[in-house]
Amino acid sequence: MVQNAENTLKVAHQAFEHFTHGLATGEWQAFFDMLTDDFTFWFPIGKFQGLNQGKEKAKEFFYYVSASFQLGLELVSLDRITSNDTTVVFEFKDAGLLLGQPYKNRVAVSFDVREDKICSYREYFGSDGKS
Amino acid sequence: MVQNAENTLKVAHQAFEHFTHGLATGEWQAFFDMLTDDFTFWFPIGKFQGLNQGKEKAKEFFYYVSASFQLGLELVSLDRITSNDTTVVFEFKDAGLLLGQPYKNRVAVSFDVREDKICSYREYFGSDGKS
Repeated sequence: MVQNAENTLKVAHQAFEHFTHGLATGEWQAFFDMLTDDFTFWFPIGKFQGLNQGKEKAKEFFYYVSASFQLGLELVSLDRITSNDTTVVFEFKDAGLLLGQPYKNRVAVSFDVREDKICSYREYFGSDGKS
Repeated sequence: MVQNAENTLKVAHQAFEHFTHGLATGEWQAFFDMLTDDFTFWFPIGKFQGLNQGKEKAKEFFYYVSASFQLGLELVSLDRITSNDTTVVFEFKDAGLLLGQPYKNRVAVSFDVREDKICSYREYFGSDGKS
């Protein structure tokens, strides 16, 4: 499969849909199915701060996120989508309860696409995790 | 002037060059010259956390940044550039001394372009400001 901007956008959109479903519900399997085995991700804070390598680490991370947001983390607005041939960035706002306390954030997530999967992911916080 | 992806990329690249020059040197005028009068920006933390409105507020902010990084904040790597017809996102790493202490960060900045100027800017932190 040739990597091109159109395919990259399509794959990333699908992954983002599974991603926000995972955040809202804790059901992550459809998102995990789109990750390459050598998937890497960067996260801003906490025990997963920095670079994390491997799909198993990713599963640990996303279940950890859902355990922290037991009532789900809702997408409030999807503000911008930018892309190139291999990468798509989603800027959005989300909100929920973090360990029972009101939480909201501005977030940018950047997905790198390889064929029909996500091979890398970088998350950035716009409001430092505070509400 | 018609807003299109090619012009948007060109304007944002020029602005990003002035932006990194400002971070490195404290010389911000060339960057300020590219901001619309109704420029708005979002910043993750501190006294400018959240939404800030107006070019004068922006000047106050960028001089405040340079006062905090008196030896300059250097671009370490420009990792990804993504765009659409009106917005360009730069993912990069930077490093310097923050109030004399070693500082490094992963950052995403998102510029909205209107004609040949930047009308909005959103900054996101990938490592929470910590080294």
